Amino acid sequence: MILDSTDTICALSTANGMGAIAMIRVSGARAFDIVSTVFSKSIESLESHTAHFGTIKNDGKLIDEVVVTVFKNPASFTGEDVVEIACHGSVFIQQEILKLLLKKGCRFAKPGEFSMRAFANGKFDLSQAEAISDLISSTTEAAHKLALQQMRGGFSDEINLLREELVNFASLIELELDFSEEDVEFADRSQLNELLDRISAKLTSLIDSFSFGNAIKNGVPISIIGAPNSGKSTLLNKFLKEEKAIVSNIAGTTRDIVEDEIVIEGIKYRFIDTAGIRDTENEIEKIGIQRAIEKAGKSAIILYLFDASHDLNKVQNEFEVLKSQLTGDSIDVIWVANKMDLLENNSVLNGLDCIQISASEGDNLEELTQKIIEITNSKNAEEQQVVVTNVRHYEALTKANEAISQVTDALGMGIPGDLVAVDIRQALHFLGEITGEISTDELLGNIFSKFCIGK
Amino acid sequence: MILDSTDTICALSTANGMGAIAMIRVSGARAFDIVSTVFSKSIESLESHTAHFGTIKNDGKLIDEVVVTVFKNPASFTGEDVVEIACHGSVFIQQEILKLLLKKGCRFAKPGEFSMRAFANGKFDLSQAEAISDLISSTTEAAHKLALQQMRGGFSDEINLLREELVNFASLIELELDFSEEDVEFADRSQLNELLDRISAKLTSLIDSFSFGNAIKNGVPISIIGAPNSGKSTLLNKFLKEEKAIVSNIAGTTRDIVEDEIVIEGIKYRFIDTAGIRDTENEIEKIGIQRAIEKAGKSAIILYLFDASHDLNKVQNEFEVLKSQLTGDSIDVIWVANKMDLLENNSVLNGLDCIQISASEGDNLEELTQKIIEITNSKNAEEQQVVVTNVRHYEALTKANEAISQVTDALGMGIPGDLVAVDIRQALHFLGEITGEISTDELLGNIFSKFCIGK
Repeated sequence: MILDSTDTICALSTANGMGAIAMIRVSGARAFDIVSTVFSKSIESLESHTAHFGTIKNDGKLIDEVVVTVFKNPASFTGEDVVEIACHGSVFIQQEILKLLLKKGCRFAKPGEFSMRAFANGKFDLSQAEAISDLISSTTEAAHKLALQQMRGGFSDEINLLREELVNFASLIELELDFSEEDVEFADRSQLNELLDRISAKLTSLIDSFSFGNAIKNGVPISIIGAPNSGKSTLLNKFLKEEKAIVSNIAGTTRDIVEDEIVIEGIKYRFIDTAGIRDTENEIEKIGIQRAIEKAGKSAIILYLFDASHDLNKVQNEFEVLKSQLTGDSIDVIWVANKMDLLENNSVLNGLDCIQISASEGDNLEELTQKIIEITNSKNAEEQQVVVTNVRHYEALTKANEAISQVTDALGMGIPGDLVAVDIRQALHFLGEITGEISTDELLGNIFSKFCIGK
Repeated sequence: MILDSTDTICALSTANGMGAIAMIRVSGARAFDIVSTVFSKSIESLESHTAHFGTIKNDGKLIDEVVVTVFKNPASFTGEDVVEIACHGSVFIQQEILKLLLKKGCRFAKPGEFSMRAFANGKFDLSQAEAISDLISSTTEAAHKLALQQMRGGFSDEINLLREELVNFASLIELELDFSEEDVEFADRSQLNELLDRISAKLTSLIDSFSFGNAIKNGVPISIIGAPNSGKSTLLNKFLKEEKAIVSNIAGTTRDIVEDEIVIEGIKYRFIDTAGIRDTENEIEKIGIQRAIEKAGKSAIILYLFDASHDLNKVQNEFEVLKSQLTGDSIDVIWVANKMDLLENNSVLNGLDCIQISASEGDNLEELTQKIIEITNSKNAEEQQVVVTNVRHYEALTKANEAISQVTDALGMGIPGDLVAVDIRQALHFLGEITGEISTDELLGNIFSKFCIGK
């Protein structure tokens, strides 16, 4: 069983490898007993939240001098008795102490098992537990902020509020079922409809925030799209400040998708250089162009790059063709006129909402960057601070929203209350899965196995 | 100045990279003040050796939830006020907290600076401090044991005992100088000579232990030497359990030195495969053979490998030629008869003290391994548990021993007491350098800069 908490578990909780100090965590009913058999003091006799210098010995043979910190249940990370052993950071010592703890009756902790126990003991809900994992792996300020917010319960609060409203709704409907022969309506249908609309609006907003939240976590994807030889690879290289993509004057140089990440003002962006879009007979280039269009459809932002000296009507026509092939919604497009340094008369661009740059000279890239930041921030602001970053949550929210739509439809069609109640229960189920109020071993196993060892 | 302890320093003390938990250490007079400005509780008001859950904020903006442990001077690792901050182990969070501490007035700790302060505050002597660094980098049981022993003062005790005896000696000689006109001898010359002999014997034993101690730290070097095509590369590969060296039936296949390490019963061995020794006109092979002989001279053990079917007289003659070219002393040689599986009558080996193996079949490698362990353990036992592992100590001991020899010589030649006293002071100086009773900023800087950051 996944939530088996009878064992006392141990693991290295600090990063792998050599450091000045390493920390080994022990949690479970026998934590104090077991550590007492190897430490120079009896743990049981020590106050909670106190640190003690001493030695770890294996059958009288010294392994290390350590500092042991004691946390008595329930005032610990897991809610169980916890001992943290800070030892010298040699890999050898880490291994020796862990081996000794196993010999004395500990079990090696599975990934995320400490967090799973904390969840089981009500220390936090499931979405908060997932936030800890995100927090540890976050590499930018924005990702860190979202994970922290979720860990502090901001996200769960929102979900729980929705769920409570739904529970009220469900009880009223179910109350009617008890009186079904009397044909009463405890739940005012117009109030219910209004409630359903509000819930649906909130769910939709949370669902919509996912593309942004996911982008924050994994990098906001920005495709650089345009005709061959418009300078896409040159622009990518300027952004990345390295010669990532091969640049030449020969149209059709780039075929494979070239991408890399940079962090601007705490947000990670994934810049994607693509094959230039044109009619071609070259099979490899054709595949490249197809991929470019697919990538563009999955982007948050498209930089539509064109040679400023080219015929603008042609450029606009080409864009319309491209647009008709894109599958994604709500993609922001920034028109970028390149090679401005070669253009003698820039009045030809009058009236066109575009940013005028020279990628090769690095001119005006600052304005382009500011525009990208502005778009990202506006997406951020739209979401009113509660942002979904987790695929699992996204899926549960989407399913809950579908169930809500069915309830609305059913009410509209005057379908019997008992069938409506089933759809509501369904929506409650999916929302409950997010915070862990409804959970299965399989779900929990799935979630916590993605954690790192020692957490 | 190197021992500048007025700053409050901070560093990541756990291994680099992502983990469940990371630990940041702050030490110095302002440690409590500084951490109080960012932590949710005032550190000053907390008891020493207690752990506290709370938050770290930068101008109201939450960075992380952490556990802070407080150690009040002098009861801390450095002897100063120390705060340890256990945060979530994301690299981003580690950096944010460190940046915040720098902003609030900490300085980033230099490598080994925590240990240097501990030394300055008398927490341990210099040889113990060096042992901590060795302890962290030790990868085998034997190296770990030596480092622990040195850290616990075993080594310093020995040095201090020697030094005390010398100090007594020096005072008596110097007392004579005060009465030089009266021609008295406070120091009984025969007793002094006996004392010098004892000290020299001890120093010599410590100096001799270095080659073993160094081998334990860096791997006991074992050269596999022999005629071409005697199976040296095959034997190396069997020991390493991988196809490290290229094996062929063509004599002279190996030219470069091929080596790798394995740990047997807690001791690290460095096995070295060499070019087969023979007369050759091939210039590259000649260089290879020269290097083989040099390597053999620097080994602790030579495995002298020969094809069991070859003429034993020739094998013995070849060995005598090799031996005459070796520069090292006290190298143990194990004669190894290879290709026993191809030998029909093994009575030809009667009377020859050798281990009979088949490298290609893996026959009898166990006996060879046992022989290697036996030799290593006998070297270990010789040293009576106090083993020098540190090049710096080795050099100081060697210089001290030279000074002692000069004293002995001077006494023998009836040289005046004041000149003898100078040599004794010299010896005292070198011994004092080991434990840090005599130290310079340069020496300390040199030692501690080899430590890892955060220690």
